[in-house]
Amino acid sequence: MINRLVIFGVGLIGGSLAMALREANYCQTIVGCSRRQTHLQQAKDLGVIDCFTTDPVVAVKGADVIFLATPLSAMQAVLAQIKDHIEPHAIITDGGSAKASVQQAAETVFDGKMPTHFVLGHPIAGREKSGVGAAVADLYNNKKVILTPVSSTNPDALEIVRLMWKATGAVVETLAVQQHDYILAATSHLPHILAYELVSTLAHSEVSDDIFRYAAGGFQDFTRIASSDPVMWRDICLENKTAILRVLDEFQQNLAGLRQNIEQGDGSSLLTSFEQAKCERDRIV
Amino acid sequence: MINRLVIFGVGLIGGSLAMALREANYCQTIVGCSRRQTHLQQAKDLGVIDCFTTDPVVAVKGADVIFLATPLSAMQAVLAQIKDHIEPHAIITDGGSAKASVQQAAETVFDGKMPTHFVLGHPIAGREKSGVGAAVADLYNNKKVILTPVSSTNPDALEIVRLMWKATGAVVETLAVQQHDYILAATSHLPHILAYELVSTLAHSEVSDDIFRYAAGGFQDFTRIASSDPVMWRDICLENKTAILRVLDEFQQNLAGLRQNIEQGDGSSLLTSFEQAKCERDRIV
Repeated sequence: MINRLVIFGVGLIGGSLAMALREANYCQTIVGCSRRQTHLQQAKDLGVIDCFTTDPVVAVKGADVIFLATPLSAMQAVLAQIKDHIEPHAIITDGGSAKASVQQAAETVFDGKMPTHFVLGHPIAGREKSGVGAAVADLYNNKKVILTPVSSTNPDALEIVRLMWKATGAVVETLAVQQHDYILAATSHLPHILAYELVSTLAHSEVSDDIFRYAAGGFQDFTRIASSDPVMWRDICLENKTAILRVLDEFQQNLAGLRQNIEQGDGSSLLTSFEQAKCERDRIV
Repeated sequence: MINRLVIFGVGLIGGSLAMALREANYCQTIVGCSRRQTHLQQAKDLGVIDCFTTDPVVAVKGADVIFLATPLSAMQAVLAQIKDHIEPHAIITDGGSAKASVQQAAETVFDGKMPTHFVLGHPIAGREKSGVGAAVADLYNNKKVILTPVSSTNPDALEIVRLMWKATGAVVETLAVQQHDYILAATSHLPHILAYELVSTLAHSEVSDDIFRYAAGGFQDFTRIASSDPVMWRDICLENKTAILRVLDEFQQNLAGLRQNIEQGDGSSLLTSFEQAKCERDRIV
């Protein structure tokens, strides 16, 4: 149970957490905080939060758990604003898609040290739609939530955050920060980049209207993720740069090899490559 | 109505055409032909075809319409076998994913000239599963079928093939051969290549098991097409090489630009690029 939970950024991620915890009767009071009053009013009207404020200092007063669900680019500013007003027992956690970046933001604000009561986390769940209107109570049900404790993380704080996510129906696991960032770069960030870039390439083609007219189901599945929130994906590209560049370079190198196989008409290498990929794909789903 | 239809290659594409035309009572007799007797027997047992033979010469005897649904790499060999045995009034058509390649195969076999009764075609429909067991009667319902007549194509032959596809519920359109090949390279062939290559890159990573363990819904949608038939995709890469290399080069160049934006932390360019892509994606679906 959490007495008072404050959520910074009541959109898809923050709003869905609030709805899930409310359904589980896991919180006494859920407070929303963000810069935009209209968004917060909408969240309150939808019954997602109990009350709200646009003042971060007011928001964290009396809060037992502080959940940061703002864009990655806003985390450091929020932390700087609340730093001197957090209750001594309060636990901070977040839902950012790139953990080294949030860790660095926290260290910068908290005098070079990661606070022991700050538990880095990331729910692996989402939708193409964003905003509190897209929030649903079962977003995290049976989805993975990855917590990335660092050496200084307080075990009790970790357990409280783990139990909070468990109450949403999520499967909670832990990974090292670097491991998380590389795995997410590979399975989520790179696919989004490729989907955006494919749509972009086709849109700039001289026959773009025809191209989209004949796009079939496979194309629509493949590019669904290109309908995601551009601001979030800009932030992810900026904040998980190292891991993304690493996996993007591997991909580009392999793609160049495949291009060469196509150019040289090397059917045998193409077949081996496609067979292995199909085999892996069929194995994992 | 077609009196006698012979289908070369009774798999997903050929089998689904047979099932759709049977449901529409559009054919008197549907004959299957391929190299593998077991596949043909299975098609007959499933009620997809009326009878079969492994001998192409026997198959085309008395046939009014000949539909080639073999892999692209087999089209020329089949055409060479049946060339001197086709009924004078018979119409040939096909379902190959790359039209210049089939045109070239036909011209090679038919003494340098595209036969007037050969109507190049391509149903834009498919499933990840292949084989006659995956064939369904409604595969083409409300899907596009693109016919790519050349200057010598007989208009009556074109009309007969158009009506055949219309009977399956498909929306039939015509395009020039080159136009078709470029559009398909962009909307279908490139996405498949990217999906195969992404799975491949991740499978060869040192943390591949972890990577696939944390892959979420977006990844599964994005890579669904990497479960498609590797032989078919090898053939497509070989047979639509020119158009694929053209669109792949455009993609690689744009991706390199995006990579540079990430490396330089150019959030403004990244945002513009993602916003435009999202806008295009939302517009087309």
